Amino acid sequence: MARIVQKFGGTSVADIARLEKVSLKIKREIDAGHQVAVVVSAMAGVTNRLVGYARSLAGSAQSAEYDVIIAAGEQVTSGLLALALCQIGIPARSLLAWQIPIVTDDAHGSARIEQIDPQRLEECWLKGVVPVIAGFQGLTPQGRLTTLGRGGSDTTAVALAAALNADRCDIYTDVTGVYTADPRIVPKARKLKEITYEEMFELSAQGAKVLQTRSVETAMRHQVCVRVLSSFHDEPGTQIVPERMLSDTFHVSGITYKGDEARLTLKNVHNEAQVIADIFETLGDADVQIDMVVQDVSLNEGTDLTFTVLKGEIPRAMDALHNVKKVSCDGLILDPNVAKITVVGVGLQRRLGIASLMFKTLGSMGVPLQVISCSPIKVSVLVDESVAEEAVRLLHSAYGLDKEC
Amino acid sequence: MARIVQKFGGTSVADIARLEKVSLKIKREIDAGHQVAVVVSAMAGVTNRLVGYARSLAGSAQSAEYDVIIAAGEQVTSGLLALALCQIGIPARSLLAWQIPIVTDDAHGSARIEQIDPQRLEECWLKGVVPVIAGFQGLTPQGRLTTLGRGGSDTTAVALAAALNADRCDIYTDVTGVYTADPRIVPKARKLKEITYEEMFELSAQGAKVLQTRSVETAMRHQVCVRVLSSFHDEPGTQIVPERMLSDTFHVSGITYKGDEARLTLKNVHNEAQVIADIFETLGDADVQIDMVVQDVSLNEGTDLTFTVLKGEIPRAMDALHNVKKVSCDGLILDPNVAKITVVGVGLQRRLGIASLMFKTLGSMGVPLQVISCSPIKVSVLVDESVAEEAVRLLHSAYGLDKEC
Repeated sequence: MARIVQKFGGTSVADIARLEKVSLKIKREIDAGHQVAVVVSAMAGVTNRLVGYARSLAGSAQSAEYDVIIAAGEQVTSGLLALALCQIGIPARSLLAWQIPIVTDDAHGSARIEQIDPQRLEECWLKGVVPVIAGFQGLTPQGRLTTLGRGGSDTTAVALAAALNADRCDIYTDVTGVYTADPRIVPKARKLKEITYEEMFELSAQGAKVLQTRSVETAMRHQVCVRVLSSFHDEPGTQIVPERMLSDTFHVSGITYKGDEARLTLKNVHNEAQVIADIFETLGDADVQIDMVVQDVSLNEGTDLTFTVLKGEIPRAMDALHNVKKVSCDGLILDPNVAKITVVGVGLQRRLGIASLMFKTLGSMGVPLQVISCSPIKVSVLVDESVAEEAVRLLHSAYGLDKEC
Repeated sequence: MARIVQKFGGTSVADIARLEKVSLKIKREIDAGHQVAVVVSAMAGVTNRLVGYARSLAGSAQSAEYDVIIAAGEQVTSGLLALALCQIGIPARSLLAWQIPIVTDDAHGSARIEQIDPQRLEECWLKGVVPVIAGFQGLTPQGRLTTLGRGGSDTTAVALAAALNADRCDIYTDVTGVYTADPRIVPKARKLKEITYEEMFELSAQGAKVLQTRSVETAMRHQVCVRVLSSFHDEPGTQIVPERMLSDTFHVSGITYKGDEARLTLKNVHNEAQVIADIFETLGDADVQIDMVVQDVSLNEGTDLTFTVLKGEIPRAMDALHNVKKVSCDGLILDPNVAKITVVGVGLQRRLGIASLMFKTLGSMGVPLQVISCSPIKVSVLVDESVAEEAVRLLHSAYGLDKEC
């Protein structure tokens, strides 16, 4: 008997017919003698509608009330799936975050799970009842509802698996696993049998939408055995593993691209540490997140300072920069039409050839590299948005990731 | 400074624009220096959609999960209205039933409020925050969500007003008050300035949809000062008062009609108390509610036993009657095409002429009276459904209720 957390996302629970199919997937594990806890997110489209209501009143502010509004979607799905299970003879009940409780901090809209009390779930199992947990939700120590940010139900599932010492956490989604690239952009993308926590983390952080980045972080920290599977097809998905277990021989596990950042360049800034520090401190105070940074020190006294920010944060960034009193520069260039392409692979730092291959391939396309950023398991390059998809396809071939046709 | 509970129902909170209008109605009371608690129901149409989901899985069964699903609608509205208030500078927060808590029994789908702790609301007021309570919801002592049945937010508002010792409870609705008849059927229906608890109770119980019957019962028990007002027009509504305050000189306060019952007649049943008792006991065991009952004792040994049941309970009633072993009768007649017309008025028992006027008026239409039932403040008559609306109009004139045109 294994202890399993099964998580079903938006399109898997999009309507009543799909909920009934999901209940059969759960039944299969129960019939095999396993102890199962289920985590659900809102039915596809519901969260968007609720966010739309909240935004039309209060803009993009993420408050305690914003969370009360959008947490309702998961509540509905958990009740419906519990009903669907009861209908096929499997005793089940919904559990909302406040009923468990799943305690989080009070960062409304992107709260972080601090503690999960597994007692209510253990009680369910003792009574032979399958707990169906509303994902995405949390409760502050002050008793207010929170939500965990987009894709937060993944994190609920992984954190629950950790709290329950589950043997595995199965994330059911609308794709059949983790791919070497987005199959909609790269038709030759291959499904990975296995991937390490670190690679999965980078893939998520750099734009792969299959798992919430924070859920991967949680899985890594607690060594939760996570599988990504399809809700619609019965085929093996992708297993996330610690490095030592990795049987795959590929060094590069995937190519992602992310179009939600914009490039900002301050021309000919006075090249003093204090000036640069002031700029970044001011942006930080304005809650602007900075990603890629590059500094061109080829000028005599000044420097061109380039960095990327999320497109949604451009107005805040511009405001903040105008307030940096001490900065004199020859102008500010804003380019929102950029995309960040990332090659993710374990052992990149030991194999510099992997990074060179990326630059060579993009060079052969005549694509200027605007900013480069590296880490032990990834190389990211900022390019013009218009060439991004083609670049991903070329890199996918160059790294030998294409499946045989 | 008065302490006021304001309740806003489905069409008053149907969309964001209306929520913004509602927030201004609340602001007006705040600006006048009053202490306000707000109760909301789900946005129009939302509960129906959620009930539809639940029914497509589990039929009409009202379980704990049914309540988890449909309680989500009120959660969304309370968050949205709190946001709308904050946007116009009025500090506000949502309060869900489990956060207060509003404790109910565990009759899922039609739970009864047992206790409300006013402390969380008092805390809000101390901080200058307007509490926006999700109506319709409750919490069992075991920590499960419940709902109070259709129109249950009215009962939440009245029960809260009682728990808070509020000076009044204003129920905002899509009509401008309580009318002598449904204005859609009787164009000459008059709005009542005042009505007694007892009359309001009968009007609700006999088909007027303006308030949930249980909310009137709660108001009566705790002597809560209730007003029914329009969310859309600024005009005086209807005040519910104890009898002694009633300034209106009309004896009859309203005519209602109800089309949700069916008539069942058992022909020539053996006329013994035990037989009749068996029949009603069996129906009671099957959870069939019986309303009007009449027995024709003109036959020699047998009797025709006629009563009405809710149309939705016909299948259960028929099953139950087939199981009453000892009953032999000459047949069972089912007529779903009936309507119950009720004249409600204080002092009816002292003025028999009021009942006679009803029979005379219906007689002049040539309408056969199928069943008659009386109480101190109402006379109900079962007639053929096809003549019901015309009968209501005629009675409305006969009792002198028509407004001057």
